[in-house]
Amino acid sequence: MRRHNRSNDSMREIRIAGDYIKHPAGSVLIEFGDTKVICTASFSEGVPPFLKGSGTGWVTGEYGMLPASTHTRNQREARKGKVDGRSQEISRLLGRALRASVDMSKLGENTIIIDCDVIQADGGTRTASITGGFVALQLAVNKMLAQGVLADNPVIQAVAAVSVGIIDGVPMLDLDYDEDSGAEVDLNLVAGADGKIVEIQGAAEKLAFGRDKLNELLDLGFHGLNALFAAQKKVIEL
Amino acid sequence: MRRHNRSNDSMREIRIAGDYIKHPAGSVLIEFGDTKVICTASFSEGVPPFLKGSGTGWVTGEYGMLPASTHTRNQREARKGKVDGRSQEISRLLGRALRASVDMSKLGENTIIIDCDVIQADGGTRTASITGGFVALQLAVNKMLAQGVLADNPVIQAVAAVSVGIIDGVPMLDLDYDEDSGAEVDLNLVAGADGKIVEIQGAAEKLAFGRDKLNELLDLGFHGLNALFAAQKKVIEL
Amino acid sequence: MRRHNRSNDSMREIRIAGDYIKHPAGSVLIEFGDTKVICTASFSEGVPPFLKGSGTGWVTGEYGMLPASTHTRNQREARKGKVDGRSQEISRLLGRALRASVDMSKLGENTIIIDCDVIQADGGTRTASITGGFVALQLAVNKMLAQGVLADNPVIQAVAAVSVGIIDGVPMLDLDYDEDSGAEVDLNLVAGADGKIVEIQGAAEKLAFGRDKLNELLDLGFHGLNALFAAQKKVIEL
Amino acid sequence: MRRHNRSNDSMREIRIAGDYIKHPAGSVLIEFGDTKVICTASFSEGVPPFLKGSGTGWVTGEYGMLPASTHTRNQREARKGKVDGRSQEISRLLGRALRASVDMSKLGENTIIIDCDVIQADGGTRTASITGGFVALQLAVNKMLAQGVLADNPVIQAVAAVSVGIIDGVPMLDLDYDEDSGAEVDLNLVAGADGKIVEIQGAAEKLAFGRDKLNELLDLGFHGLNALFAAQKKVIEL
Amino acid sequence: MRRHNRSNDSMREIRIAGDYIKHPAGSVLIEFGDTKVICTASFSEGVPPFLKGSGTGWVTGEYGMLPASTHTRNQREARKGKVDGRSQEISRLLGRALRASVDMSKLGENTIIIDCDVIQADGGTRTASITGGFVALQLAVNKMLAQGVLADNPVIQAVAAVSVGIIDGVPMLDLDYDEDSGAEVDLNLVAGADGKIVEIQGAAEKLAFGRDKLNELLDLGFHGLNALFAAQKKVIEL
Amino acid sequence: MRRHNRSNDSMREIRIAGDYIKHPAGSVLIEFGDTKVICTASFSEGVPPFLKGSGTGWVTGEYGMLPASTHTRNQREARKGKVDGRSQEISRLLGRALRASVDMSKLGENTIIIDCDVIQADGGTRTASITGGFVALQLAVNKMLAQGVLADNPVIQAVAAVSVGIIDGVPMLDLDYDEDSGAEVDLNLVAGADGKIVEIQGAAEKLAFGRDKLNELLDLGFHGLNALFAAQKKVIEL
Repeated sequence: MRRHNRSNDSMREIRIAGDYIKHPAGSVLIEFGDTKVICTASFSEGVPPFLKGSGTGWVTGEYGMLPASTHTRNQREARKGKVDGRSQEISRLLGRALRASVDMSKLGENTIIIDCDVIQADGGTRTASITGGFVALQLAVNKMLAQGVLADNPVIQAVAAVSVGIIDGVPMLDLDYDEDSGAEVDLNLVAGADGKIVEIQGAAEKLAFGRDKLNELLDLGFHGLNALFAAQKKVIEL
Repeated sequence: MRRHNRSNDSMREIRIAGDYIKHPAGSVLIEFGDTKVICTASFSEGVPPFLKGSGTGWVTGEYGMLPASTHTRNQREARKGKVDGRSQEISRLLGRALRASVDMSKLGENTIIIDCDVIQADGGTRTASITGGFVALQLAVNKMLAQGVLADNPVIQAVAAVSVGIIDGVPMLDLDYDEDSGAEVDLNLVAGADGKIVEIQGAAEKLAFGRDKLNELLDLGFHGLNALFAAQKKVIEL
Repeated sequence: MRRHNRSNDSMREIRIAGDYIKHPAGSVLIEFGDTKVICTASFSEGVPPFLKGSGTGWVTGEYGMLPASTHTRNQREARKGKVDGRSQEISRLLGRALRASVDMSKLGENTIIIDCDVIQADGGTRTASITGGFVALQLAVNKMLAQGVLADNPVIQAVAAVSVGIIDGVPMLDLDYDEDSGAEVDLNLVAGADGKIVEIQGAAEKLAFGRDKLNELLDLGFHGLNALFAAQKKVIEL
Repeated sequence: MRRHNRSNDSMREIRIAGDYIKHPAGSVLIEFGDTKVICTASFSEGVPPFLKGSGTGWVTGEYGMLPASTHTRNQREARKGKVDGRSQEISRLLGRALRASVDMSKLGENTIIIDCDVIQADGGTRTASITGGFVALQLAVNKMLAQGVLADNPVIQAVAAVSVGIIDGVPMLDLDYDEDSGAEVDLNLVAGADGKIVEIQGAAEKLAFGRDKLNELLDLGFHGLNALFAAQKKVIEL
Repeated sequence: MRRHNRSNDSMREIRIAGDYIKHPAGSVLIEFGDTKVICTASFSEGVPPFLKGSGTGWVTGEYGMLPASTHTRNQREARKGKVDGRSQEISRLLGRALRASVDMSKLGENTIIIDCDVIQADGGTRTASITGGFVALQLAVNKMLAQGVLADNPVIQAVAAVSVGIIDGVPMLDLDYDEDSGAEVDLNLVAGADGKIVEIQGAAEKLAFGRDKLNELLDLGFHGLNALFAAQKKVIEL
Repeated sequence: MRRHNRSNDSMREIRIAGDYIKHPAGSVLIEFGDTKVICTASFSEGVPPFLKGSGTGWVTGEYGMLPASTHTRNQREARKGKVDGRSQEISRLLGRALRASVDMSKLGENTIIIDCDVIQADGGTRTASITGGFVALQLAVNKMLAQGVLADNPVIQAVAAVSVGIIDGVPMLDLDYDEDSGAEVDLNLVAGADGKIVEIQGAAEKLAFGRDKLNELLDLGFHGLNALFAAQKKVIEL
């Protein structure tokens, strides 16, 4: 048995609190067990230079961790004078994942920035960020629709993300920090509510894996995603 | 009357939740009305170079704001590649204020870093950071004493901070963001539980002020500090 | 038909020239059609701090592009004062991929740095970098074995990488720049010579894809990898 | 007795040489004993973005130290690639202090930058910078009035600054470096020629201080400011 | 005798391969013995701010080294977050040298950027960069003339560069890395095809030198330049 | 006639004030007409890593300009977050020039840093820096000899520098800013008191120049250097 009496195919407890921060258009506090991430969606006029005059909008993401969110305090990125490679990578993933959920042509020349800041880390911070980031995005869009800033709903479908991994040869769902540290394979799956893949990132530093294992991991991942889509719905449909 | 039915000498509602983040030795979520700051105290072995071999420890502080914590989203400092002047200034103030509460010689060659990260800003973020930072520090020290890492209690006395200001000629306590934006004078007062001044910073960009006004502001400030010391006590003595 | 009379499952012409640069322990110029990358493997004593005293070594990678290597000149990263997010991401992928081919415990406390610098870009620069980077690594290891610096061969097996994508619904192998720009799905597959997956990264910014398409892409990818492993062998076994 | 036969309420010798540098609109070399600062006021068209179109101008300040100006050579900030926290803090104080002396609406959309560069440091560099910076500002304004660039005199009143501190329980005026290093309390007072407070910054890292001591310090400070306003006048009215 | 049977007044083997990189308007791979540099000339619309509206164009240069191009791997400048002093110095020299070969008024408001990236270093990388950079520039200009982007040929004359030095009191031409490391005097001579000096930079860290030695070095340098102008011609006149 | 009734072969007025700044071991204020530079020589224990354990010392230089030292205020380098290419180039020249005057083996493992900061610029700042830098260095060495920190005099001979240029075809000595801006050729000559060349840097952006002109420039330069060596002597032999 895994900690907290989890079976290999069960998620940690999922909690999503909507409207968590008052200034941005949309926001949530999302928790996967002990992992806690504040996700906000800020709406602003204007688009990056490459889209000026195109009539379409943009969605982008930024990811960060508070210094004391990790087991051992990590140095503040602003002090180092740069964004870590890992943070940049996750920010880029976050942006791609959420753009897959939006029809940019219905945004007008506006930008939605999704900020995901980890306040407590225990594995799965990037999947929690994507999952919570979508809810923040939806809440912001709802607000913009209500205010008449947007005419049509630009959201195509919900997007969520889950991690799966192989530990001692056994595929497991939603790894926590300790499990992740010892995993042979770590795979993050981002998908739409229609069950199609938006992004797949799987890496094996220790042991390469066969296509059969890949399929087992995907089965587990889609199983976990169902729980996430359900949790998102509860907040969005309030 | 001020918003939320406040009189000129009343604080906003003060809430301090202890042990808010699980990894650091001490932590709180402190709220002054709508201002919310996560304060953590991380204990680590070793001291900065100028103290090596001295046998004494060090306390330092770092302050940051989440991008969407403010009325209008502010750019992430890590993206800008540097800490803003304002953040540096508050970080330095935070460190000085908390060092005034600790007998460094009882820390051994260890360092306590206080991280204050604003998740929602509505004025008074630096005073909430100092006030909450002290509680996080005390909780960390309590833990280190319980674990035997520290032999003697290095805390001399509690430290807290409050803002006061003059609006249309009238001194007021604990300004929120709207009040602060229109104030003629803005003064932050850091004091010890013994009623002595640890730091005073008052600035008048619009209208210089006389010593009589300074005294009125200090009266108001010490009045507010009593409420803060009481709120700190409730968490620390749990 | 694709450009250069390619069918959907054929690679561009693969050329690997060994010992291309004289100073580093190993080096190649690798070409996938018009994509050209200089890959070098530099051997140095010492390891990063987290491995000091462990007796094991380290393999890491760095990726860059010459300013005029791309269709439109891109600004020199050194001038911008930072490594782009994209370059960092590829550098990290390169390091992970090559570490999967080496038994670090047989390296002693030594580091091999793989530098992959694109001198002409036409799609697939990251897969060419990994594929060429492995050859440079192997040539460096051969030299170190010949010189007696290494006692045992630390290389476990060859590693190579290929890109596959979906264009107008059709899966294709080894996309060039124009194909890549219009692809609905872009997937990079890193695998070992034993046919197992080292890393898989697939992204759909435009259209999410089903598991059936994922399988088609993997079939194509493994087909392409065979050609790459054969091309690597010719240089290594000289 | 203090060094140079000073009593506790006496300033060091004050010297202000006007028109010290030929290119900027206004400039001085100011000396407080062995502390020497070059202050220049550069006039330029245009304002920061947040004032564009407002019809009002801006005054800002920048502070720096030459590497060999201090007891032990300090590293050049440009080499470190950033402005130190301390320099930023003083630059911000300098800007606020001088803005308090100017009616920005009479500047038109023009900016005055006050640069204060310490060439020899012996305590009180920030107070010398503000005091000398005002004279440079006034000289620049005089020139712009004479040239007809400005129609009305935008200067409201002179501004000057002084440091006071407590050493072994005794309040003292205008601390030099050695005195400052050993002080229990260090307070900088910026005021207008009308005797009102523009900024007050007092800090006690070692020993908190009561309101009685604060009043003694303010008495001393205002006493010192009289000498500074007199010294400023001699240069401005030439 | 020097390595490779060179006499004191002979150049290493010179090779220049034109059209080496396909995207930029002009490009070469230039080799001076084992020194190999990729030089590209990128043509772009627009000029730096100080030339806007002037009707004239600009030519500028950037120099870099691949990490493994040197005897011992050097750290990637992009990772250090800045351009080294040496690289900046050579970039500035490169720009000045090539501007001497072009009548900027015939460029229109367009910019040509010359990128010189050393892929293998064995002494003389800056002189190879200038010599190869001119060929890349000429090839780019030829292309722009053929396309009608430029109406008149803006090239005044060819420019090339050579190094000379004094080793054990003996002047020598075109130093390789080992020779350069031991030289008492190192002098780089940039000249036009008309035999006039564009730039001369000679430095004696070990032993100052008399004007007689300077003249001997210049004799040697002009001798070497003849070979370089001949090598340039062969590529340009193809 | 040139400004200030100068003939083509005359220097501007040279003034060197010794012991200008009290903290560093040696210092001067040097003036070439309206060009004013503070030069300091700071002595410190220890050497850069590449000299550790060698028993020999090091001399290095850093050059900067105050923001308002130039005709139009230039942005502070520390604010830009980097040292300009021009400042780096001059710093490197300064270091090389002064190392030519010192026998490093007699310094022990100590470092002398020469800081040259321009407080008012009117052409010739780099030559004034080298000329004044040598005096500061000599004064520091004298102090270290007097204190017994150095046993033997490490100074080999004086070093000075002068600029010469060609304006409308006419060679001229010691160009001021206006002359320099219009010069066809600009050449800086660094030499030892024995009349030998330490460094020569001549550049022709507008018109290449023949060897005859080079000789005329050198004649002028050595003529000017005599005046500089005489001015240095007066301060050093006090």
